[in-house]
Amino acid sequence: MSFNTFGHMFRVTTFGESHGVAIGCVVDGCPPMIPLTEADIQQDLDRRRPGQSRFTTQRQEPDQVKILSGVMAHPETGVQVTTGTPIGLLIENTDQRSKDYSEIKDKFRPGHADFTYEAKYGLRDYRGGGRSSARETATRVAAGAIARKVLPDVKVRGALVQMGPHKIDRDKWDWDEIAKNPFFCPDKDKAAFFETYLDGIRKSGSSIGAVLEIVAEGVPAGLGAPIYAKLDSDLAGAMMTINAVKGVEIGAGFGAAELTGEENADEMRTGNDGTRFLSNHAGGILGGISTGQPVVVRFAVKPTSSILQPRRTVDRQGADTEIFTKGRHDPCVGIRAVPVGEAMMACVLADHFLRDRGQVG
Amino acid sequence: MSFNTFGHMFRVTTFGESHGVAIGCVVDGCPPMIPLTEADIQQDLDRRRPGQSRFTTQRQEPDQVKILSGVMAHPETGVQVTTGTPIGLLIENTDQRSKDYSEIKDKFRPGHADFTYEAKYGLRDYRGGGRSSARETATRVAAGAIARKVLPDVKVRGALVQMGPHKIDRDKWDWDEIAKNPFFCPDKDKAAFFETYLDGIRKSGSSIGAVLEIVAEGVPAGLGAPIYAKLDSDLAGAMMTINAVKGVEIGAGFGAAELTGEENADEMRTGNDGTRFLSNHAGGILGGISTGQPVVVRFAVKPTSSILQPRRTVDRQGADTEIFTKGRHDPCVGIRAVPVGEAMMACVLADHFLRDRGQVG
Amino acid sequence: MSFNTFGHMFRVTTFGESHGVAIGCVVDGCPPMIPLTEADIQQDLDRRRPGQSRFTTQRQEPDQVKILSGVMAHPETGVQVTTGTPIGLLIENTDQRSKDYSEIKDKFRPGHADFTYEAKYGLRDYRGGGRSSARETATRVAAGAIARKVLPDVKVRGALVQMGPHKIDRDKWDWDEIAKNPFFCPDKDKAAFFETYLDGIRKSGSSIGAVLEIVAEGVPAGLGAPIYAKLDSDLAGAMMTINAVKGVEIGAGFGAAELTGEENADEMRTGNDGTRFLSNHAGGILGGISTGQPVVVRFAVKPTSSILQPRRTVDRQGADTEIFTKGRHDPCVGIRAVPVGEAMMACVLADHFLRDRGQVG
Amino acid sequence: MSFNTFGHMFRVTTFGESHGVAIGCVVDGCPPMIPLTEADIQQDLDRRRPGQSRFTTQRQEPDQVKILSGVMAHPETGVQVTTGTPIGLLIENTDQRSKDYSEIKDKFRPGHADFTYEAKYGLRDYRGGGRSSARETATRVAAGAIARKVLPDVKVRGALVQMGPHKIDRDKWDWDEIAKNPFFCPDKDKAAFFETYLDGIRKSGSSIGAVLEIVAEGVPAGLGAPIYAKLDSDLAGAMMTINAVKGVEIGAGFGAAELTGEENADEMRTGNDGTRFLSNHAGGILGGISTGQPVVVRFAVKPTSSILQPRRTVDRQGADTEIFTKGRHDPCVGIRAVPVGEAMMACVLADHFLRDRGQVG
Repeated sequence: MSFNTFGHMFRVTTFGESHGVAIGCVVDGCPPMIPLTEADIQQDLDRRRPGQSRFTTQRQEPDQVKILSGVMAHPETGVQVTTGTPIGLLIENTDQRSKDYSEIKDKFRPGHADFTYEAKYGLRDYRGGGRSSARETATRVAAGAIARKVLPDVKVRGALVQMGPHKIDRDKWDWDEIAKNPFFCPDKDKAAFFETYLDGIRKSGSSIGAVLEIVAEGVPAGLGAPIYAKLDSDLAGAMMTINAVKGVEIGAGFGAAELTGEENADEMRTGNDGTRFLSNHAGGILGGISTGQPVVVRFAVKPTSSILQPRRTVDRQGADTEIFTKGRHDPCVGIRAVPVGEAMMACVLADHFLRDRGQVG
Repeated sequence: MSFNTFGHMFRVTTFGESHGVAIGCVVDGCPPMIPLTEADIQQDLDRRRPGQSRFTTQRQEPDQVKILSGVMAHPETGVQVTTGTPIGLLIENTDQRSKDYSEIKDKFRPGHADFTYEAKYGLRDYRGGGRSSARETATRVAAGAIARKVLPDVKVRGALVQMGPHKIDRDKWDWDEIAKNPFFCPDKDKAAFFETYLDGIRKSGSSIGAVLEIVAEGVPAGLGAPIYAKLDSDLAGAMMTINAVKGVEIGAGFGAAELTGEENADEMRTGNDGTRFLSNHAGGILGGISTGQPVVVRFAVKPTSSILQPRRTVDRQGADTEIFTKGRHDPCVGIRAVPVGEAMMACVLADHFLRDRGQVG
Repeated sequence: MSFNTFGHMFRVTTFGESHGVAIGCVVDGCPPMIPLTEADIQQDLDRRRPGQSRFTTQRQEPDQVKILSGVMAHPETGVQVTTGTPIGLLIENTDQRSKDYSEIKDKFRPGHADFTYEAKYGLRDYRGGGRSSARETATRVAAGAIARKVLPDVKVRGALVQMGPHKIDRDKWDWDEIAKNPFFCPDKDKAAFFETYLDGIRKSGSSIGAVLEIVAEGVPAGLGAPIYAKLDSDLAGAMMTINAVKGVEIGAGFGAAELTGEENADEMRTGNDGTRFLSNHAGGILGGISTGQPVVVRFAVKPTSSILQPRRTVDRQGADTEIFTKGRHDPCVGIRAVPVGEAMMACVLADHFLRDRGQVG
Repeated sequence: MSFNTFGHMFRVTTFGESHGVAIGCVVDGCPPMIPLTEADIQQDLDRRRPGQSRFTTQRQEPDQVKILSGVMAHPETGVQVTTGTPIGLLIENTDQRSKDYSEIKDKFRPGHADFTYEAKYGLRDYRGGGRSSARETATRVAAGAIARKVLPDVKVRGALVQMGPHKIDRDKWDWDEIAKNPFFCPDKDKAAFFETYLDGIRKSGSSIGAVLEIVAEGVPAGLGAPIYAKLDSDLAGAMMTINAVKGVEIGAGFGAAELTGEENADEMRTGNDGTRFLSNHAGGILGGISTGQPVVVRFAVKPTSSILQPRRTVDRQGADTEIFTKGRHDPCVGIRAVPVGEAMMACVLADHFLRDRGQVG
């Protein structure tokens, strides 16, 4: 039923709440003989980890991953490799600050899943967002690290390209800048601006949205399928599973609505390495199948609703009231979604790579 | 593997190419005892049918649907109802104009799936787009008509809200206008403008993109699930399976990136009928679960690449060449996507309704 | 949800009732470039077709299959091949004899699905068994014919090895005999005996059960997976979907319960073509994965309950009554299940072949 | 792809090897508000735990289960209940005796999955059977304990009904005896006999097969579905996923092959509580749907191939050699499969209960 599973051949099932014992996931269908250590995964987790700058929640979690199964030392080489059996991953929760939840427990925070969880299940884990906590995304990042190893020739990178109404200057795009600022921003100047801008948001107890872009280079032509297994459909669905995401677009995206057919269609020429496209409005996908060009996905992340300003709401008993969220929060949750978006891209591509190999050989 | 199936409990499997014998689908998992006739389905198909104005392809297809299985006359009432077994639907292809395909057969049309189909499968059905023809969407509309009957209290309607750079005036939104112009446009004045505008596009042999909006009213709170079965994720994936769609957004969508937390969060008050939201930036979905407000999805449709202007491309042998597409085409394929988007919305909601009833009761 | 779909990569979705317009199926995930004509499929359908001897129901159906989609003439060779897109198959119902169903309509036939369909759905298609008719199996046979083409080096054959209490003499097993008698019986002498035996059953208006054996030779080692995707699990599940099947076993099967570990384990030696097993108690599967030996499955088919002798039952209103089934029936439905079992074996193997290729390459 | 997942609405995904850090599973789709503690699960695990008599392997594992997620104290009652989100379960491996695996590491044990794992994946975890260890079944028993709570009115019990060629006397069936002997045997006298019989097997370093029967009482009529989601198909597939199982039958099973239609069909009368069947050859399932009678499944477990007698085999390099398995082993692995079979029955029923509620309401 895929309640908490995504993927078909490369399948990820996650579990865990923000304030439970641990979170984790099972990665199933991974090919055998792929070198894999905890350090490989930890590297990606560390990029997502909160509390690394004043611009993300101050929750301190080491996010130390343990591989519980699915790997062993290769009998000849001694290198730890995957065995083809399910890979269980565990990340313990350590900083479940025993704070006062009485405010949240009985009131529905506007913009949060509080109301809908109760409407569906009759109760909700109010501690730290429970299942809908951004913490769940750590398990995806861990799974994504494995997916990357399934596709060693594919390079998946992400960037923040807009914060609030402020877009980066795409002519200044420099991937090397990403690691040099706390925003995953590829435009050095804009990153400097965001520092001041987001400080203002943060200090006022407010929050702001963002747009991220994930790019996969080296994706072979032929991944995806015509109709309901379109690569772009699975990417859109995958990005939309990330908390707070409200929009997804491929290539020219919503901009394509404003283009004419002759502007939008990417012309082709034969180059030294086969077919060459003269532009990439398609974002690397035509008819649901990869073209061999970079796969480009953008998604919008709404501002977190956990803010210091009081908002009107109702409580569990149905009475009108007000609420404001004390404690640590992310002034721009979009920032930390960059490694998460990369992970989802990697997982979807790994899945389609295996599916394509299955059907077409 | 879901190559050509979507949904979990309410499942639709489609088949058929533009120029084969027939197209069709199997609707599986439909509850029993739902009154259903071919006329119920035909009504929706007729709204999608091409050739009804000069703004859609002139292919003439009656799109007459046949129910092959899954219904019977109720033993007591005599009313034809579903039996709970799979509903087979068939639509014969009649207007497979025997035109000259020699141009398309060996050249890849830029912006089409020609190149990627060949890259994946080694061959492609070049006649009328084959599997990637807009014709496939007729089967979804048929399935959607059944989905609507699963949710009789939910009203799913769609509209064209932008053509090229021209957006409608949302203050002039009038659902009654939709049926009065060939664009499904709810803004009477803009519809008049589009008539002239699209004529220009059409006569120049060009094409243009569009943005559509699908709204579902009467959706009960509680449909969807927290993580990988989020209602918005399934909606985004579903809309992105429609040909030519390049972007999807829910509620405030990409606009949410520009909002602060206090602007974006929908405040709540208790009304006569339970909880009332004071705005709907969420588009009816929080944490992946419906709030009870209207579910609002928008998606961008790129301009068709079948245009009369010559474009640079390569042929199957890898030689550089040029191509232009003769014959009937849609100046704005987005128009006909309105009933298709409605159908996908209806199918996703029906699926989640059954899944929710399964888990929660 | 797999209500009417089986398989993961090679997926078959069937629809249709005994007395509707048509039955059919969609075969999805089939690799491209496989030569396929209607005649290829018809050949297998003809083996299943009823009315070919006095030992099967006298219903006369040509069972003429039409391919609706998913194939085209190869652009270079002109040979009709699969395209990788879904293959729609249709078989029209022609002999829906307009008989009197008043007896069946209101009474539940013991041993039939009448009672359970009504218990679940509130109604049932009483005409000819509706969805639970043996007629549905024609679509599986059609799908199986395609599955065989996915695995051209695998030979799937089936035989009737027991009728009532009478088992064949396995020392007299001759595959060539299968086509020479109306029972698919590989033991010539026993086939002669069955002729008389089953005539007695038939004339007395009774029916009898049977055991069938399906053998797949040429299956490469490595198909299947350790736990929930075990090849034997999928085979058992698949055979048990055939109407009237009440038991399935692999290799030594229930006989293995009586063996010691040293008797049951198949010893190995290295031969000219790699590892050679000295016996095949495993039925070609160890730990859920194929060994390279013949895969051997047996299943038990119960006697049809449509018999001429009156049985006690209840009617839809809950009153005690009696019923006996007039009209054409199969004295031993197990006979016609041979091609069906072969088809299910072929489909499961094709599915696992593609899944294995996907994961392991 | 369901490599390590089973079920559709009530879904279980397991991971873990015999000698890794831990084994575990994720139970997804469980309804909310079900009271659930670790003690509830531990109770069932303790019944499966090895080392409780001299007739099961002497491996000592406390099999202490931890619930990692998916439960919380009900905000009003304080009772720990499920939340509707995925339930992560963990069982640490403690007794991974550091024994000498050099013998097994390079030789394929006849009757084990050694050969096939290597054939598929190129390597295998030779320590304690790796993924194919009986240890994996502990996670199913844990999941089954939760499934039982989804269906509080259904009673699932299992028994050993045959060991080697020795069948119990069904007239002496007494469920109360099950807990009184180490064999889960309902026939007191036969249990006494098994004590001597299995001691002989054990002392000679041999092993023996068994047949188990699982009975579910209180199953409502209407669970299951006509064709590929037949309740008996899912039960057969589920039982066949248990290690060493080689055959499955429902109700009269293979015995039905020997019956006539009039003997096999279960007649019906109207009783005080609705329809009453006069016999249960169907094993509680007709046409794939439950009748309301007890659901009866039997399965055959082969003898373990880990025995003290030397057997001919080959090594990883392809050379002929001999092997015998030292160390702890189960003389009759079938014994411990009783709680596992119960768990699989409970999981399949819970899954079908939720699926039926989803489709039919």
